[in-house]
Amino acid sequence: MEFTVEQRLGDGVLERRFSLGDIPGILWTPGSPSAPVPLVLLGHPGGLDRMYPRLAARARHTVAEGFAAATIELPGSGDRPRSAAADQARADLRRAVQAGERVGDDIVDRLVLPLVDKAVPECRAALDVLLSLPGITGPAGYAGGVISIGVRLAAVEPRIAAALLFAGSYVPRSILEEARRVTVPLHVLLQWDDEGNDRQMALDLFDAFGSEEKTLHANMGGHTGVPAFEADAGNRFFSRHLVATR
Amino acid sequence: MEFTVEQRLGDGVLERRFSLGDIPGILWTPGSPSAPVPLVLLGHPGGLDRMYPRLAARARHTVAEGFAAATIELPGSGDRPRSAAADQARADLRRAVQAGERVGDDIVDRLVLPLVDKAVPECRAALDVLLSLPGITGPAGYAGGVISIGVRLAAVEPRIAAALLFAGSYVPRSILEEARRVTVPLHVLLQWDDEGNDRQMALDLFDAFGSEEKTLHANMGGHTGVPAFEADAGNRFFSRHLVATR
Repeated sequence: MEFTVEQRLGDGVLERRFSLGDIPGILWTPGSPSAPVPLVLLGHPGGLDRMYPRLAARARHTVAEGFAAATIELPGSGDRPRSAAADQARADLRRAVQAGERVGDDIVDRLVLPLVDKAVPECRAALDVLLSLPGITGPAGYAGGVISIGVRLAAVEPRIAAALLFAGSYVPRSILEEARRVTVPLHVLLQWDDEGNDRQMALDLFDAFGSEEKTLHANMGGHTGVPAFEADAGNRFFSRHLVATR
Repeated sequence: MEFTVEQRLGDGVLERRFSLGDIPGILWTPGSPSAPVPLVLLGHPGGLDRMYPRLAARARHTVAEGFAAATIELPGSGDRPRSAAADQARADLRRAVQAGERVGDDIVDRLVLPLVDKAVPECRAALDVLLSLPGITGPAGYAGGVISIGVRLAAVEPRIAAALLFAGSYVPRSILEEARRVTVPLHVLLQWDDEGNDRQMALDLFDAFGSEEKTLHANMGGHTGVPAFEADAGNRFFSRHLVATR
């Protein structure tokens, strides 16, 4: 891992861009660290530059509550090599949505499963490096979308002790099966009127998780309309499960 | 309104039993009041004495966050005259549940609608008196079940500025129609595996509410298994909507 650009944000938070091989990422840590803090890995739909304002806001909120936050670029997004197959699946999805058709399982599988197959090992490699940095300690949390990445990561990665998942994207049916193997505490956010989301699929996914502690927070509005107070609720969730288990 | 017995609880909270005509109730107020505080009316399934430990715990938590809390006995419960029709409906419901049958709309209507018809005017009469007491100010919140009482009260009573509803009892279909007229901010608690509750009906009810701000918190476990952290979430909800609007 190589740190490239670093800056101090207004509240003293240290923001460092890094490269992990050819994967760009960003790490946010407390301005005046005292003890090592647990890490929250921030998920997003891809495109670090486009997502930066929202990611930085989430990260600063997370760091203010006593965590480190980090994110990496998704395969095929931003400056990373695009996938022709994913582009084709995305075009097929757009065509189906515009035609008012139900998006077929085949399109969802082609769009999401290869992404999950690549992204989850990359998240785990990032954890290897990030959790070995001074000032950062395990266990870690995962927060955000793509929800299918969060599901697989929570199912296979024992260092993920809690996950906050955004039900805001298409979910392959096979991911429902993987969800049954997730046992860590979960906090699931669902935008009730999300135009790009299948509400019933999100409820089925919530039902499928094997976790004994899982909470669903459903709010009104579309995909980007998550209320500001949910940021606090998310931090309290991680405080219960990452800080208490240290 | 007549105050009968009063006591100081361990944390200084003042607990006063009262009678409103032939309706018994309990009022909890801060031990050392400074400014007047908004009122939260606590709903419950009936039987003040049986419910007292849970109600007092909720009330103390509510008062600690800067509110007054009050509750009144339901029609037909505790020491109040029983209703033969309600007893019959309850027996029919028990028989259906024990036989593993779907509980018919007719039974739910007979059980719940007369209760709502009586309880809502009684809640409004209690608000008349409670909101005129020194140290208590409007607007008010409603917190708890019977959810159908909360729906009707929130729909018709302009002094209810926010409602926290427990989706934990049978809901008549006509209440779904009334829910469309509710416009105040809502916080709905759903126990995902509640044995005495129809999950789909609860989701339909959540969908039906006309409120622009409504949040559903679903947690695992049965009817009485609401996690402790939801008490904090409820208080924060009322702090946003009752305190800020004073």
